[in-house]
Amino acid sequence: MEKGSIFMREFDLSSDVYSLFLEAFKDKNPLHTDDSFAQSKGFEMRVMHGNILNGFISYFIGECLPTKNVIIQKQEIQFHLPVYVNSKLKFEAKIEEFYESVNSYEFKFYFENENRKKVAKGKIQIGILK
Amino acid sequence: MEKGSIFMREFDLSSDVYSLFLEAFKDKNPLHTDDSFAQSKGFEMRVMHGNILNGFISYFIGECLPTKNVIIQKQEIQFHLPVYVNSKLKFEAKIEEFYESVNSYEFKFYFENENRKKVAKGKIQIGILK
Repeated sequence: MEKGSIFMREFDLSSDVYSLFLEAFKDKNPLHTDDSFAQSKGFEMRVMHGNILNGFISYFIGECLPTKNVIIQKQEIQFHLPVYVNSKLKFEAKIEEFYESVNSYEFKFYFENENRKKVAKGKIQIGILK
Repeated sequence: MEKGSIFMREFDLSSDVYSLFLEAFKDKNPLHTDDSFAQSKGFEMRVMHGNILNGFISYFIGECLPTKNVIIQKQEIQFHLPVYVNSKLKFEAKIEEFYESVNSYEFKFYFENENRKKVAKGKIQIGILK
């Protein structure tokens, strides 16, 4: 884990993940649950909740780094394009900064869809637990 | 929905929500799943995933506003204090800005625990769908 390190993963936004997110958080806004509503707003079909991507970030930080002694301190995300169910998303994160005095790392990340378009990007700051 | 409007809710971070989040996203980092590991790091017990709070934000935006014609554009969150399972969190969000030219709203929000301590705070920007 040093400045410049790059991490990549693929995340499968399956109908299972979508269903579990809906069951956990009950956000049944028609944009996320009603294809014809979403189409009336110019989308192909119902749009996946952006916060499903934040769940993938939880997994990335908790499970995919060389150390398990981590805690998320800050996160930000910007959503650029809609994501639909059964998308396979490529995720890439790069360590932008290491703040030695406070033992924390800052990542920049993005998610890309199958057409290699960035659907979301943002930053994550984590602390290393002693 | 106008600048200065305030919205409040209570969110129950129940063991059901926690289990569904774990099942959806598989972040089984020991901080979130192992009481004795979390205690060795100075916490009372296993710490809930911060991104569960982002799931509550999805519900707030999707289900609790006067209009359903909304989409999240940006989100940021800072985590200040650990949250444990079975916490009841008070959530408050205030409309800080309305950008008429692009029909988007910016909220500032925080989550407070039962001891009235702020556990997290941040910003959300949403767009109104036409």
